[in-house]
Amino acid sequence: MDYSPKKIDISDEKCPVKATLSILGGKWTLIILYQINNRVIRYGELKRSIPGISEKMLIQSLNQLIEHGLVDKKAYPEIPPRVEYSLTEIGFKSLPIIDKLEEFGRENLI
Amino acid sequence: MDYSPKKIDISDEKCPVKATLSILGGKWTLIILYQINNRVIRYGELKRSIPGISEKMLIQSLNQLIEHGLVDKKAYPEIPPRVEYSLTEIGFKSLPIIDKLEEFGRENLI
Repeated sequence: MDYSPKKIDISDEKCPVKATLSILGGKWTLIILYQINNRVIRYGELKRSIPGISEKMLIQSLNQLIEHGLVDKKAYPEIPPRVEYSLTEIGFKSLPIIDKLEEFGRENLI
Repeated sequence: MDYSPKKIDISDEKCPVKATLSILGGKWTLIILYQINNRVIRYGELKRSIPGISEKMLIQSLNQLIEHGLVDKKAYPEIPPRVEYSLTEIGFKSLPIIDKLEEFGRENLI
């Protein structure tokens, strides 16, 4: 095993892994980020693209992602109301994490 | 944003991201893997290295990791009993995911 991992101290309050997990660790969070991806997507389309997620969980997760600055929300003063979601610069930087998850799953689990 | 993510279909039962998250998605799972790392570590030392984790959660998470083939457990017929944990080849392949989490946290959150 030629892998030599970086030493990090997870007991340290400012541990970057713990900080990331506190934001991205939710059951659906990474999947939501991945489904938004490099698109501007409306709520309905996003919901349909994530089978199994409840209305409540999607709205709650989106609000957390907006609060943490990973997702941008634009509401247009139209009838019916139009709301669109897209990733911010920081949100976009989470996608390589998901690529690693995809790679691990493809190589070891599927 | 020059990032062009791979297209994956998370509604597909065999989605590698969902498969990985089903194994690594637990609150403490990645942190346990990271603390074992390239060491052979005893239960007590592992527990002390993860502040905040309960006995029940650590044992439950370890058993799941052993069941999924990411962690190896060796019990020595001694008194008092000696039990050691180490990563398997597949377990070791999860560490680059944690490096990405660490990188994201360091660059964007801390």
